[in-house]
Amino acid sequence: MTQAPIRIIGIDPGLRRTGWGVITAEGSRLGYVAGGTLKADERLPLAERLLSLHEQLTRVVAEWTPDEAAVEETFVNKDARSTLKLGHARAVALLVPAAAGLSVAEYAPNAVKKCVVGAGHADKDQIHHMVKILLPRCKPDSADAADALAVAVTHAHHRTSAVARIAAGAVAS
Amino acid sequence: MTQAPIRIIGIDPGLRRTGWGVITAEGSRLGYVAGGTLKADERLPLAERLLSLHEQLTRVVAEWTPDEAAVEETFVNKDARSTLKLGHARAVALLVPAAAGLSVAEYAPNAVKKCVVGAGHADKDQIHHMVKILLPRCKPDSADAADALAVAVTHAHHRTSAVARIAAGAVAS
Repeated sequence: MTQAPIRIIGIDPGLRRTGWGVITAEGSRLGYVAGGTLKADERLPLAERLLSLHEQLTRVVAEWTPDEAAVEETFVNKDARSTLKLGHARAVALLVPAAAGLSVAEYAPNAVKKCVVGAGHADKDQIHHMVKILLPRCKPDSADAADALAVAVTHAHHRTSAVARIAAGAVAS
Repeated sequence: MTQAPIRIIGIDPGLRRTGWGVITAEGSRLGYVAGGTLKADERLPLAERLLSLHEQLTRVVAEWTPDEAAVEETFVNKDARSTLKLGHARAVALLVPAAAGLSVAEYAPNAVKKCVVGAGHADKDQIHHMVKILLPRCKPDSADAADALAVAVTHAHHRTSAVARIAAGAVAS
């Protein structure tokens, strides 16, 4: 059974830097499309930083026309202020693809690591390394862009598994 | 010196309920314009709840055409997950007026209480009571709507003080 290729955007949100990456997935075959890092001027008031991130991410979605989106779940850490800031950036990362009519999946950092590297506790370098092996043409311009591609790969994998399960179910019935 | 009347929208963000209230301020004279409570279906995925809040708040801003916005600062509590959720809702509350070209001020809960009730540790009932005295025509449909009006009143007060300071400075120079 052949699946039509779909485009997935992965997003690794942050208030300083938000990584994004678009891949194609055709069954288990993956391809790199585009990727990059969005930045907002830290001297701007919070509302304007969020607006800038919103505008930049809206342009990315309009330019690369993904079919589905996947966002990295925020690591809730002990510093409540950092958690709150991450929440702000993450809201924009969820909102923009939803506004474009895309389904938005969320993956915990550990699930992403486990999918891309095979272990839940890989470091940034390992992820970067594996992303480049899985998507040979990609050249992530930051660790955040590499993470975003890893999230997109994770979604492609989970998505294919789900489709395979549905197909298997259909054959069995 | 007479100030032209301006419209201020106050927003008290929350993922379940977001209160909003629009007032006019002409020097120290305040007037109630409109207010209400926005709700998002809790069964929806997070991205769609944020999108719903974004759409509802965008409609409010378009309908009531405020000139300036004021948003209550999030209380950072010990439960990191709640803080994160509040961060999501608050991002939308900051983003929507900024996208409409409004300046967005932020006020800590204590500053709002101190301005409206005269003490930093007032309870919800006291705020509700004072908001109704300051804005006789208002009928807040929730505690969140009353809080939103209190934030708008706080901004009107701080704004007038700032204008008075500038005017005094201008006279003195």
